[in-house]
Order: sequence, then structure tokens, then C-alpha cells
Amino acid sequence: MTTHVPINLAAKLATFDEHWQPRTVATFNGHDIMVVKVKGEFVWHSHADSDDLFLVLHGRIRIELRDGAVELGPGELFVVPRGVEHRPVAIDEAHLMLIEPTGTPNTGDEATAAQRRVI
Amino acid sequence: MTTHVPINLAAKLATFDEHWQPRTVATFNGHDIMVVKVKGEFVWHSHADSDDLFLVLHGRIRIELRDGAVELGPGELFVVPRGVEHRPVAIDEAHLMLIEPTGTPNTGDEATAAQRRVI
Repeated sequence: MTTHVPINLAAKLATFDEHWQPRTVATFNGHDIMVVKVKGEFVWHSHADSDDLFLVLHGRIRIELRDGAVELGPGELFVVPRGVEHRPVAIDEAHLMLIEPTGTPNTGDEATAAQRRVI
Repeated sequence: MTTHVPINLAAKLATFDEHWQPRTVATFNGHDIMVVKVKGEFVWHSHADSDDLFLVLHGRIRIELRDGAVELGPGELFVVPRGVEHRPVAIDEAHLMLIEPTGTPNTGDEATAAQRRVI
């Protein structure tokens, strides 16, 4: 029998400390399932070809949009539609699960994006 | 300013009681983000054209595979690759988040699948 191992999101998050540096923990239909620690303000950006899914695992974030904002706590998710400018902000450190097509730059721009890292 | 509302997964799960009847709570890149309550044994099935993502929100499940099994608790996820036969089992009620392409039958077969419901 093959041993199959679940992916424990908290255990994956415990392996690193940097903020805004997503780690890929699984792949799914051409997408990366990622975890990330965030604190402070990210840059305003959008993804022309992909929706952007945020699920809060720990802490709280605010996703600023040009026409308002949404506040998310643990167990809450929000999908930013493709092409919509947004800026995630976390006053205190928060932990998120993200899903993006493999290869999507996290800032919407290859030049400024975090390098893809698989853990 | 537009009011944007987060999707609270526990609140969505509190709106229904049936087992193995997923509810779509958001859409993302042509996929349904779903929550489901499960208890007991599901049918053996596979999805020819899609991986199958399980994230446990509450309780525990076992995903049986033809060559073994994987046990998942809260905050743990597992991706069953496309074409791989599997059977989810929950001894006690468990709550899951699932992601599947919109239109994917949950049993792998239109004839026996749960109807798509959006909440």
C-alpha cells in the first residue's frame, strides 16, 4: 500500500517567516494551492487573466478595492474577479491560502513578483 | 462605495443539514468553490477530466484510494489526481471545502450526481 500524506496548512506555514512570499503546497487543475504570511500593505495590482482567491486561515485582512473594501477573518474567503485592482492589507500578521494558475505573478507583473517556491 | 461581503464558510454550512449535497458559495476561474457536510461512506468514483480537492474545515475524513488511504483533519487538504478512483468516508459528520470545475458531477457520473446548488 502506498502511504498518502495530507497537506497540513499550519505545518507548512510554520516552515517560513517571510511576509508576502507565497509557498506552493499542492497543484490542482493547473493552479497552485499556496499558503502565505502577510503583514502590512501589499501593492495595488490586478491579474488580467485570473480571478484571485483569498481564504483566511489565521488573523484578519482587509482587501481594498477601488470602490470599497472587504474585511476577512478566519474561515472567510473572497474572490477578486480578474482585472479588478486590489490591495491586501493586514494590520497584524495573517495567514492565508491562495489559489492562482501556476505561473501567475503575485503582483500582477513578472518584474516585481515573488519567485515561485514549492514546499 | 460598494459593499463587499466576505464568504463565511461556517455560516454557509449552517444553512443546510443534508450530507453529500455540496453547495456552491463562490466561483473562481471556471470552478465552483463548494462546502459540503459528509457522514458515512460515499461511492467509489473518479473524475476523468479534473483533479479533486478536499479541504477539511471541521471533523475528520478518510479518503480511500485503491492503493491505500489518507486521513485528514481540520486545516488539512488533499488533491486526488484526475482519473484516480477514490471514496471519501467520514465516521462522524465532517465539513469540507471542495473545488471542482463548474458542472463536474460529484459522483463522476451525471446520472447519480447531486444537483448543483448555489447559496
